[in-house]
Amino acid sequence: MKDNVAIFDTTLRDGEQAAGTRLGSREKLTIARQLSRLNIDIIEAGYPASSPEDFEAVRLLSREIDNATICALSRAVASDIDACGKALAKAKRARIHTGIGVSDIHILGKFRDEKYGKTLAEKRVKLIKMAVDAVKMAKGLADEVEFYAEDAGRADPEYLFEMLEAAIGAGANVVNIPDTTGYTVPEQFGGLIRSIREKVPNIDKAVISVHCHDDLGMAVANTLAGVHNGARQVEGTINGIGERAGNAALEEVVMALRTRADYFGLRTRIHTNEFYRTSRLVADMLGMIVPANKAVVGGNAFSHSSGIHVDGFLKKRETYEIMRPEDVGFSESRVVLTARTGRHGLRDRLAKLGYKLSQPELNQAYQRFLAVADKKQEVFDEDLIAILHGQLGEVPAVYSLDYLHTYSGTAAIPTATVRMKVRDEVKEGATVGNGQVDAVYRAIAMVTRSSARLTRYEIRAVTSGTEALGEVTVQMEEGGRRVLGRGTSTDVIEASAKAYVDGLNKLADLAQSGQAD
Amino acid sequence: MKDNVAIFDTTLRDGEQAAGTRLGSREKLTIARQLSRLNIDIIEAGYPASSPEDFEAVRLLSREIDNATICALSRAVASDIDACGKALAKAKRARIHTGIGVSDIHILGKFRDEKYGKTLAEKRVKLIKMAVDAVKMAKGLADEVEFYAEDAGRADPEYLFEMLEAAIGAGANVVNIPDTTGYTVPEQFGGLIRSIREKVPNIDKAVISVHCHDDLGMAVANTLAGVHNGARQVEGTINGIGERAGNAALEEVVMALRTRADYFGLRTRIHTNEFYRTSRLVADMLGMIVPANKAVVGGNAFSHSSGIHVDGFLKKRETYEIMRPEDVGFSESRVVLTARTGRHGLRDRLAKLGYKLSQPELNQAYQRFLAVADKKQEVFDEDLIAILHGQLGEVPAVYSLDYLHTYSGTAAIPTATVRMKVRDEVKEGATVGNGQVDAVYRAIAMVTRSSARLTRYEIRAVTSGTEALGEVTVQMEEGGRRVLGRGTSTDVIEASAKAYVDGLNKLADLAQSGQAD
Repeated sequence: MKDNVAIFDTTLRDGEQAAGTRLGSREKLTIARQLSRLNIDIIEAGYPASSPEDFEAVRLLSREIDNATICALSRAVASDIDACGKALAKAKRARIHTGIGVSDIHILGKFRDEKYGKTLAEKRVKLIKMAVDAVKMAKGLADEVEFYAEDAGRADPEYLFEMLEAAIGAGANVVNIPDTTGYTVPEQFGGLIRSIREKVPNIDKAVISVHCHDDLGMAVANTLAGVHNGARQVEGTINGIGERAGNAALEEVVMALRTRADYFGLRTRIHTNEFYRTSRLVADMLGMIVPANKAVVGGNAFSHSSGIHVDGFLKKRETYEIMRPEDVGFSESRVVLTARTGRHGLRDRLAKLGYKLSQPELNQAYQRFLAVADKKQEVFDEDLIAILHGQLGEVPAVYSLDYLHTYSGTAAIPTATVRMKVRDEVKEGATVGNGQVDAVYRAIAMVTRSSARLTRYEIRAVTSGTEALGEVTVQMEEGGRRVLGRGTSTDVIEASAKAYVDGLNKLADLAQSGQAD
Repeated sequence: MKDNVAIFDTTLRDGEQAAGTRLGSREKLTIARQLSRLNIDIIEAGYPASSPEDFEAVRLLSREIDNATICALSRAVASDIDACGKALAKAKRARIHTGIGVSDIHILGKFRDEKYGKTLAEKRVKLIKMAVDAVKMAKGLADEVEFYAEDAGRADPEYLFEMLEAAIGAGANVVNIPDTTGYTVPEQFGGLIRSIREKVPNIDKAVISVHCHDDLGMAVANTLAGVHNGARQVEGTINGIGERAGNAALEEVVMALRTRADYFGLRTRIHTNEFYRTSRLVADMLGMIVPANKAVVGGNAFSHSSGIHVDGFLKKRETYEIMRPEDVGFSESRVVLTARTGRHGLRDRLAKLGYKLSQPELNQAYQRFLAVADKKQEVFDEDLIAILHGQLGEVPAVYSLDYLHTYSGTAAIPTATVRMKVRDEVKEGATVGNGQVDAVYRAIAMVTRSSARLTRYEIRAVTSGTEALGEVTVQMEEGGRRVLGRGTSTDVIEASAKAYVDGLNKLADLAQSGQAD
């Protein structure tokens, strides 16, 4: 059995669908480019039949990403598979991921209509036929077909084996065994994978994949138990995001395989020193937060606080550390960046952080860097990353904020005055609100005559200290389209205004590309 | 073998030490009261020898909490154990938790001084003697003694068995097997626990405890593997906080034991419907964030977003859900609270959320509720909890903010004017800053003549929407004391000011109690 484990990233599909927001195709491309720097083997780009945006994202990634297999999801339904085939047409290496429920709970719950058979036994036969038809159809439209047996963790094993044998017989190259509800424990899930290897006669013709959810906190351990028992593909997401409690966190799975190579005897192709950057990019783009105690990529993952630990750590690093921070891309550099650092110093630091910018991109980043450095004594790596993420994947600006003024206090009615450019027209206005942010948003909505609805507002300090960069993320909705707007500034009210304007521009951009379709 | 698993919570010790901040003893008591509502068996309250504040916290909890064993940590050092004995003197049931390193890495790293022996063999003998002496001494000062074998996960098993036998021989009631660096995998860790049961001759005289860290994402699975193989005490923290990547999350361990009772055949005494409240209280008090995809208690843990999932879920809940939200204390109530709700409605909702307030507490909460309800259309459960947490464990106010006014914008120099009461004196002042928050903080520092240093600033929206409650947490330092200040308001600048003033008051309170000692 070969000792390489393929890494299948579903951040853009299972991860994005849970974030409560949608990424535009350009935003998905920004993340996909970072995933390809991480050297992910297979990128699941979306579920094309679910929306025109998802279709477009799969099409864009197929065209632009050339060092990873691009995968698209479908149910065992002809129209879904057809959409996958079309969206993946330009991919260098395309995979269709299709499948069907196999647990009795799923069969009786989701396929209760009599057209799927009257009894459980009839439905079971019908579903195998649907699976076979789906795999055969997908086979004609992509280089590879992966078959998922949904809720395998709770399925009757005998029926699961039968289903897998049929899918492999129909041409599936990979069979995915999802623990859809995060119900299993490692010993059981590992045993299930072992029994699949023993009981499915044609299993040597396919790779076994594991796809685990974290409802009981065991996604990573279940995934590793699967691999230890013969799975050779792992599905997961960056930061472990995904439906409900999320999926297996790829950074944890990969670092466990690497740190415990003595136990697993396996390897991956992943460039682990890209993990930190990837984690922060995904968190920033989706407006989700990486908690300090997140394994591998959390802010505290490599810090030691108690006296006992610090003492031990300083005497011998290995006392309390089993991985090196630099192996996952934490920069150890402590060189101070200030307004006097200059363009060369900035490029150098960005290169150390793994960002290679073109000359125009560098110039733009430098201008933003200066604006921040003017207001802060020291610019931290995190500031730089925030600056870059604000800049990557920028959309054409229909709206821009020229002037903002707020007036507030315990004995004052919060008031905001704005002047905006809307295409080439200049518009001004002022209004009051409940708090300064509310006043600013009302003023902007008034002068832009926007009907966008604000559905979420999140604010956080990106770096420490009172002159820290504040980052605001807003979720906005208009005409069924949902976007995230982001703004960064040392002034939280200004950051809030920028985020709102960014959201308006993204909505305008989406409305435009919708018309163009 | 009995089927009850004791739950040992170390949120206030291992959790707090990692949060980068210190809780005052009053704040620890607020959390301990909630832990006792959760029905935790053993609460580890602190490490008394490490600081006067920790000593005081252990003493306070010993006096005030009567339905849980109170535990205190020590090294295998007489002065540490002595401090534990003194701090625990008033506890209804007291436990001293002492121990020593057992892995060669720890022995050679932390005990390299020749006074512990020249060779590894000599050191090993010396450390067993130290362990025995420590257990014997502790035995005379507390009802129970728990012995920890630090870094057992990486130790030579034969030496570990010898050490455990000696500690149990000396009177240890519980032997704790920590995977200090989060290095093990479930199969191995479970095997280790099984071999301890088989190889340590007097093991039937002690309970085996497991204490796992999450560096490779397997803390919960390792803990459960330990229990499955005979451990009958579990150590962990709420939200999984703790050194580096944190400890096993107790809410995940307990819900896994409960949800998979078919596999484990074990039970705990935990009132699981207190988990959500406990999680939010700990997060709020320590200024840490619970990510949406956190298992069991995350905001998304019970939400279903993809079309496929929502469809399945609506047809049959069990399709995608293995626990019920109400079992962990998520309120399903969707009744809308507004300014017209009245005191009775508020008390009713608070009772549903599990808060039983005295009449004066209710009156105070109602005033705050009205202030929020006046500014918001709807008051959410999260708003209420934020209101309560702002109110619980309040310290006497030396400083109060009477008036705040800020002036800012893209073409203005951010300026803040404040009027404060400092004890009975009124002081006023204005200053400029980098952004409004900075200006406000400079103004407050100026008029209070505070030398406190701001070491962290965090801001987040507690609820959704532009008129959401903003919550600011600041970490401040003065004279070696470190506190968290918190402020909540619909205006983020006002919330920032409140947090700063709260921090100043806590520093003043600590300085006072320091003098009183």
